[in-house]
Formats: sequence, C-alpha cells, structure tokens
Amino acid sequence: MNSEAINFKDKLSLINEHWSPKVITEMNDYQFKLVKFEGDFIWHDHPETDETFIVIEGDLRIDFRDSLVHLSTGEMYVIPKGVEHKPFAENEVQILLIVPKGIKNTGHEGGKRTAENDVWI
Amino acid sequence: MNSEAINFKDKLSLINEHWSPKVITEMNDYQFKLVKFEGDFIWHDHPETDETFIVIEGDLRIDFRDSLVHLSTGEMYVIPKGVEHKPFAENEVQILLIVPKGIKNTGHEGGKRTAENDVWI
Repeated sequence: MNSEAINFKDKLSLINEHWSPKVITEMNDYQFKLVKFEGDFIWHDHPETDETFIVIEGDLRIDFRDSLVHLSTGEMYVIPKGVEHKPFAENEVQILLIVPKGIKNTGHEGGKRTAENDVWI
Repeated sequence: MNSEAINFKDKLSLINEHWSPKVITEMNDYQFKLVKFEGDFIWHDHPETDETFIVIEGDLRIDFRDSLVHLSTGEMYVIPKGVEHKPFAENEVQILLIVPKGIKNTGHEGGKRTAENDVWI
C-alpha cells in the first residue's frame, strides 16, 4: 500500500497548462484532479453527476444562466448535475476537482476545449 | 439554487468538539464533512468504501497495521476500503473528510466514539 500523502502544491508544480485536469488519486469510482484555470471556459453541464470545485489558491467565478458564485482560496462549491455553468478566472487559479471517472471537462458539449481524461501526475 | 461558496475556515469556527464530523455539503451520494481531531482514535475500517482525508490545517498521522502516513496542511490521502486504520493528532488538526452518506466514523466497530451522522453546520 502506498503510504505517501499527496501534496497539492508539489503536484500543482507539475502542471504547465491551463484547463487540462490531471488525476492525482481515486476514491471508489471518483477521481481527484488538479487543474489550473485562467480566462474563460465554455458553457456546459454534466447531466449525469454533480461536480465539486475546491480552490487551492486564487479566485474563481462560476457563472450560471441566472446567477453566479465567487470562490477564493479555501472555499468549495458543488455544482448540481445538469446545471449549465461556465468557469472564469481573471488570474490563474489552482483547483481541485472531484468527479466520477470518465466525466469530460466539457460535459456533452465536446469541442476543442475537451481535455484528455485519465492523465495522471 | 444556493450560490454561496462554502468557506472551510468559517465552517470550522463553528466546531467546538473533537472527533465529531459535521456535514457541509453533498455531491451525489457522498458527503463532505469537517472535523477536528486531537489525540488518539480507535482502530477501525470501512469494508464498503474508500475514505478520503484532506488536511485543512495541522498535522495528522494515520497508523495502519503495517505502516503509517503523515499528512500536513494541504495534503490528502485516500484510505482503501477494508484497510484498518487509526488516526492520531498530537495537536488539534482540522480535516475535510469525504465519504458516502451513512458511513460511520468508527466503521463497524461502533462503541462510544461513534459520532452521530448527518449533523450539518
């Protein structure tokens, strides 16, 4: 059994691109993914699952069609399944995502912003 | 829809006891729980699920029957299902737990250290 803790800052130092979540560990059929956002993403939703955002460092805004939420360092938010959302970060923000295995970052929208899944760091 | 982020420090300030996890939000059939540990817990396991520990502030040791892991602020560890473990904190440590709904803190051991489930803050 691996008896090493996972250090978020150490793992984040290995990420050099934006909008490309990297898996750091799994819990049952869920994955924990670190990602750096900067700028605007696309509108999308995940019809089959909730999606958890935990901000490790920085500021994040998540727009919904009828509201928005601001998250800062040490804050979290769970987006209910099926709710359209669009993340935005004026400056780089470092995030821990929790979603079931196999869920795409762009949901069913697809397109060029879709990141490869199951890339571990 | 609730559009307020959950701030870990704000929620932790509402917890005045040790070893008593409080629910802060849910993702699908999982719960996020904040808890403060100090001292020694009991040996137990969760035969039906992995269990995730994220250290918000402080230092935590988790003993296994044949090894151990040290976690500090900004670190996480996923305990595989069925693996016996015993958390220990020399000084108070503040932790975010992620487990499916209905899982007891003492697993199937039970006893007086078993905390009430589904207590929200």
